[in-house]
This record gives sequence, structure tokens and C-alpha cells, in this order.
Amino acid sequence: MRTVDLIQRKRDGEELAPEEIDYLLDGYTNGEVPDYQMSAFLMAVYFSGMSDREVSRFTDCMLRSGESVDLSSVSGIKVDKHSTGGVGDKTSLIVAPLAASAGVLVPMMSGRALGHTGGTLDKLESIPGFHTSLSPDDVRRLLGEVGMCFLGQSDRLAPADGKLYALRDVTATVESIPLISSSIMSKKLAEGLDALVLDVKVGSGAFMKKQVDARRLAQMMVGIGRRMDKRVQALITDMSQPLGYAVGNALEVMEASQTLQNAGPSDLTKLSIELAARMIHLSKKTASLDDARRLAEEKLVDGSGYRKFKQVVAAQGGNPQALDKFELLPNATGMREVTSPRGGYVTLIDAEDIGVASNMIGAGRDRKEDTIDPAVGIILEVKVGEKVDAGSVLCRLYYTREDRVEEAADLVEDAFRISAQKPEERELILEVVG
Amino acid sequence: MRTVDLIQRKRDGEELAPEEIDYLLDGYTNGEVPDYQMSAFLMAVYFSGMSDREVSRFTDCMLRSGESVDLSSVSGIKVDKHSTGGVGDKTSLIVAPLAASAGVLVPMMSGRALGHTGGTLDKLESIPGFHTSLSPDDVRRLLGEVGMCFLGQSDRLAPADGKLYALRDVTATVESIPLISSSIMSKKLAEGLDALVLDVKVGSGAFMKKQVDARRLAQMMVGIGRRMDKRVQALITDMSQPLGYAVGNALEVMEASQTLQNAGPSDLTKLSIELAARMIHLSKKTASLDDARRLAEEKLVDGSGYRKFKQVVAAQGGNPQALDKFELLPNATGMREVTSPRGGYVTLIDAEDIGVASNMIGAGRDRKEDTIDPAVGIILEVKVGEKVDAGSVLCRLYYTREDRVEEAADLVEDAFRISAQKPEERELILEVVG
Repeated sequence: MRTVDLIQRKRDGEELAPEEIDYLLDGYTNGEVPDYQMSAFLMAVYFSGMSDREVSRFTDCMLRSGESVDLSSVSGIKVDKHSTGGVGDKTSLIVAPLAASAGVLVPMMSGRALGHTGGTLDKLESIPGFHTSLSPDDVRRLLGEVGMCFLGQSDRLAPADGKLYALRDVTATVESIPLISSSIMSKKLAEGLDALVLDVKVGSGAFMKKQVDARRLAQMMVGIGRRMDKRVQALITDMSQPLGYAVGNALEVMEASQTLQNAGPSDLTKLSIELAARMIHLSKKTASLDDARRLAEEKLVDGSGYRKFKQVVAAQGGNPQALDKFELLPNATGMREVTSPRGGYVTLIDAEDIGVASNMIGAGRDRKEDTIDPAVGIILEVKVGEKVDAGSVLCRLYYTREDRVEEAADLVEDAFRISAQKPEERELILEVVG
Repeated sequence: MRTVDLIQRKRDGEELAPEEIDYLLDGYTNGEVPDYQMSAFLMAVYFSGMSDREVSRFTDCMLRSGESVDLSSVSGIKVDKHSTGGVGDKTSLIVAPLAASAGVLVPMMSGRALGHTGGTLDKLESIPGFHTSLSPDDVRRLLGEVGMCFLGQSDRLAPADGKLYALRDVTATVESIPLISSSIMSKKLAEGLDALVLDVKVGSGAFMKKQVDARRLAQMMVGIGRRMDKRVQALITDMSQPLGYAVGNALEVMEASQTLQNAGPSDLTKLSIELAARMIHLSKKTASLDDARRLAEEKLVDGSGYRKFKQVVAAQGGNPQALDKFELLPNATGMREVTSPRGGYVTLIDAEDIGVASNMIGAGRDRKEDTIDPAVGIILEVKVGEKVDAGSVLCRLYYTREDRVEEAADLVEDAFRISAQKPEERELILEVVG
């Protein structure tokens, strides 16, 4: 077997056999296949795609390249949720406690902010004392004691994915549906799950700008899971405007906390209930999906989810009081309002622009090595479809350093489109796959 | 400027600016752009192509990466011919002396056999004593004294192309029309030419299997030349069957010698006259192309071309007597006939199969480091369109080692298709570009 022949066959749109995928990926992991051949292969995949069979084997290779978290000693069905990333998407903080309070075991593996999208780990770390570096023993103990935990991704899980991602990042091969699918699924499947709910975002604030691409990504990930005997469902949800009102780490923790007290934005509440319900249903806690929705709502309304959130925060070293007393969270020192230049309806709030502006004032990372300011961010005052007057506040920027505030404010102003005509209502949950 | 952004823009089908091409190629040559980014870029070019402007700049970068042969001190118009490679294509050995005997200055830069196609340098080196490693001073002296020379490609000409080609070879990015065009033209333009005639082969024995691809390659190379103020013309010629009857190094020298004595195969003679005529016309030796054709024919018939060939062989250290007395050339020790299984018309002689079979018995190279047996090869007894009886000889294999003769004979037998119906006649010269 020669690597160049495998590259050529992929280039020419052929399907590679399982042992050929193994040869490439195992060879890459152990250094026998050099970077320059792998990058040509990745670009060929970008153009020629991969079959379901290929992408499953590819995922399996990456999974096999490292350790798995062995959760077999914890009895019960383990379910996680994964979002492909958006702006203001703090559902993980809400959904995991809701599902856990309904009896689902939730080892929630989360990531960090990158580009214009936020990261659950960064949000949680704005809670004083909270830490996410858990050993496998910690995970098993927390699942037993609390029924859930938030864990960071270990370098020992799917290291081939880490190596491959670094190469994709510098060779313009990130935006490939099979490569994204296998990257996500190899990490998720390494954490010993029985089922997984995926939230595939689509719109300006998401990696997938078109619904047809989001659907292909969802289908591919659901297919990978199925071939590995995992129950996987995907929602395709709108990310054309930010989810909820808050964007920024501590600000999102506050909003998540309010939402768990049934005082959150309606879009965020609705999506969180639906995601939690899917997790509850996949873990067979209820006979029907409708029952699962009712159970999730009940756990929100009766405060069980909120109590579970406080419990896990305490169990992972954080101060649970900060979830009531927001002055215990990092707070910004400055505030800048952005007002509407005219009266009319809000027809667009470009989520990507809001995410980029939020990064400018320090809430995110452009590069992996950037540090985050947990206090800063943006709070929207209106959402798409609402009516505003000329001069009324569209949103507020909370900052601690002034240097890029005006630039960010300009970008935020551009992100809003105000028109005379009321826009058509857009569905939040667009499709279900699997 | 970031390399990854340039890769992405090429991937997305955008045109890169001249300074962006420079950044990539110059960076690659001096080691700042690593192999793994260049190979991803090359694969993106494979899929997205390059504009004429891009490919010209790309060629120019490769040209600038090394030395050029300075022929300005040699007065007169310098013209070369280049073939994209075929089976039995010994036209260089005929065309260069014909054009030189008509007064054209011909610094003929030639290559080595690779894959199933032969190489002019290997053919010439089957003549005892002949050498092709010439210094720039040698080239200038030979052009002055003989009017022509055969030179090997120096590593100092377009070294970026050498580095790039080695990378393309292991990353399945060889078969890209802009990359082939720029590779050929960077080397050709480094030898101080005024004009160039290209013979773009199409058919089973050529790199280009389809005429539409051959046309795009021809157009691209002609365009590159024009933008550098060189007169360039391309013929697109048939390579579905071998050219002439002989395939193999010394065997092809013998056939070239016969052809220069006006006793060669009609297809080889016809194409050689046409190529020489184009060179004569581009160098403005005649008022019309028809005049140039008549002049080339005259030089063939009166023996001037043949004498010029002997003269250059002697000037480059070879024994010119070997061109009359073939026993002075390397001769094979064994012969194996391949006969027709049935009577009928020869409708196909797959040139690639013949080339591969010839390699099997030692006439070519599968890898660069393989050594060549100059004596061995294949002589066809018939060509497409001829009638054969059952049991009549289709061709003869000449060998010195027996180990792969039967395997080669089987392949050769498969290469011939014998049918009841006479095939339609196929044109040898299919198109002229430029």
C-alpha cells in the first residue's frame, strides 16, 4: 500500500477500504505518514468528500488512537449533548442540570471559545473556584454523587484528532463536513457515552451558514454514532441571531442561572427544554418524547434543575452563591450603549458580528493562546421581530478596557438591521435528524 | 499575508494576486512555507485550477528561482521543441538536426525516461561515448560550431520546479494542467529560447488521455510563452498507438537514423517534418509555413539532416559510425515474437501497454533510481489499420534478461486488438494551438 495511491484515489472520488483508512490514520498518528501527504489527503477529502463507511472508520481510528473514559462501573445510561458552536449559546449550562435532575447521567464534555463562538469551559470558569480538569476517577465519582459533571477534553482522548486538527487549521481544511463530523464524534465517543444529542447550529453565527450543509453534518454524525451502536439525535437550530440576550462568559452564567429559575429568555428556555427532553427520552426515562418534554419543564419550574446546577458547581470547587449573587461573579467596569439610528422593526442581528465584537472587548479568543476577560460581553436589549424607537437602546457593551470599545460598538451597530416592515417569524428549531 | 489564507482562497476558486503567488513560491523555495502547506495548496490547485495570469506568475517564480542559460552572445534565433512524452516518440532526434540543417539554432533540452514514456537523453546515451552534460560554455560553443546540441536539464535551472515536482510526485498532484504547464515552461524558458514548438501528446500512451485536456494544456503553455514574449506553437498529436515501429533506446536511435535517411515509418516522418517546419517558420527562415515544410523535406531528402545528426553526435563525444553500423550500438541477445491469435485488421495498439511492457524488459524506469538497459525494447511489425493473418508476427521483443519476458509478451498481446472490420483512419496531427 502506498500513501500516494490512497491520496490519488480519494482525489478521484473513490471510496477507500477500511484497512486503507487505518493505514493512513494509524500511519499519521505514529509518524509514518508525513504531514505533507496528510494535508494533500485532507484537501482531497475537502473536495471529494467521504462516504458514511469511510467517515465511520476514520472516526474509529481517531478514537482508537487514545484512551477512552471507562464509565462501565457507573450503572445507568450516560448521555451528553454537543453543540457545534454559536453566539450566546449557553444551553449546556442549563440542559445538563435539567437532564441530570430527571435522572439522566450526564458526563458533559465541553470545549473552549475559539473564533467568534463561545466555549462552555470558559463560561463556567468565570464562577470563582470552578475547575474542569477532572480525572476519570473524578468523573465516575461525580456521576455517582451528583449525576453529572462538566469536564474538559483531555489530550489523551483521541490524540490523532488533536494532531489532525492542528494540521487542518494551517492548511485550510477545517471546513469539511466529514472531517468536522469525525473530529466531534471521535472525542464524544471516547467518553463512554450510550447516547448523544447534537445541536447543529446554522446561520451567520454558526460554522454552517446553510441549512443543507447543517443537515449533511447532522446526518453524518448521526450515522457515525449509529454504526457504533450509540443512540444519536440531532436538532438543527437557528443561529442567525444570538441565542438569548447575553454574550460573554460571566454574563452568560447569569443568564443561564436566571433561565434555570424560569426567568430566562423564551428562545433559550425553549431550546434548553427541547434538548433536555431529547436526552431524557434517549436515556429511556420516559415512554414518549412528549412525556420527556413535560418532565424537563417540570424540573425547570420546580427548581430541581437550578438546585442541580448549584450542586455541580459546588462539587467542582465553585462558589454556588455566585449563581444568586451576581456581584460574586466578575463584573465589568465600563458600559457603552448602542442605540437605534431610527424607529422600526429589528429584522436582523448578525450573530457573527456580535460574536466578533464581543471578542474585540476581550470575551473570546482569536488565537488559542489568547486570554479571556470573564467579566466582559454584550447584552442585547431587543431581539429580531421587536419594534424599536429612534434612539432606544439596542444593546449594551460591558467592558473593562477601553481600547477597542468604539470599534466593537461600530460593529455591533452594523449587526442590527432596522426596517419599516415587520420580519417573518423564523423557527428556532428547524429540523430533527435521527 | 498568511499562507493558510492563500490556500483557502485558492480552494474557494479565487484568483491570487501576483505578489501572493510570489509569497507562496519564493517562500517555498527558501523554506519559509513548509511542505505540508504547499501540498495542500497544490491539491487545491488540482481542483480549482489557475488563471492564465496566475500560472504565468507561478512559472516566472520558478524560473527566477534558479539560473538561466545566457545565449545572448550567440546571434540568431534559438528554437527548441518539447514533447509531453509518449511511447516510441523519437522525434527530437530527427527534428533537431532537420531544423538545425535549415539554419535554426537548436539548444535542445531533453529529459529522461519515466513511467511508460521514453526519454531523449536515455536514447542518445545508447550511442557509445555520447554525453549530454554540457556547461553553458559548451552550449554556446556547440550552437556556434554545429548549430545545435542536446543538453540535459541542469539542477541549477528552475530548482523550485525540482523541489515542487518531488512533492507533487508523492501527493498525487502531478496531473494538474496548470502545474504541468508551469513545470515544463519554467525549464524551457530558462534555456534562453526565442521560440518553442510543443508537441502535446494525447491518447492512451500520453499523460493526457482526452483531447480536451491536451488542448487546455497546449493553450496554457502557449499563453505562458506569449506573456513572456516568446513565440510558442503547439501541435496536438495522436499517441493512441506508438509512434513509428521501434520502442526502446538503441532501437529508437536506429529508427531515427533510418528516418533521417528518408527510410523511416511514414507517421514518424510526417510528424518530424511538421515539427521541424514549425521551428523553421518560427525562426523566420521562410516566408510561409508551406515554404518551411518544403525546406524541412528538402533537408531530409538530401541527407543534410542526417549529416547534422552525425555531426552533433561526434561533437558530443559519440561515435557517428554507430548511426550506420547498428552493430556498434548495444544489441539485445534474445528475441521473442508475439503473433496474432486470429486474422483481421489491427484496430488498436495500446501505447501505454507497449510502454509498460518495454519497461518490464528493462527499457525504461519505474522509479528515478532504476537503471536502463539500452539494448532492449519492442519492434512493432504492424500498425493500426493493417491486415494480419492468424499466426503472423505482430511484434518482436528484444531482451537481454529472460525473467519478465513472458509477462511482457502477455501484456503486448493484450495491447493489440484484432477485429474483422477495418478501423476508421485516425489523424496523426489533430490540432494546432497558437
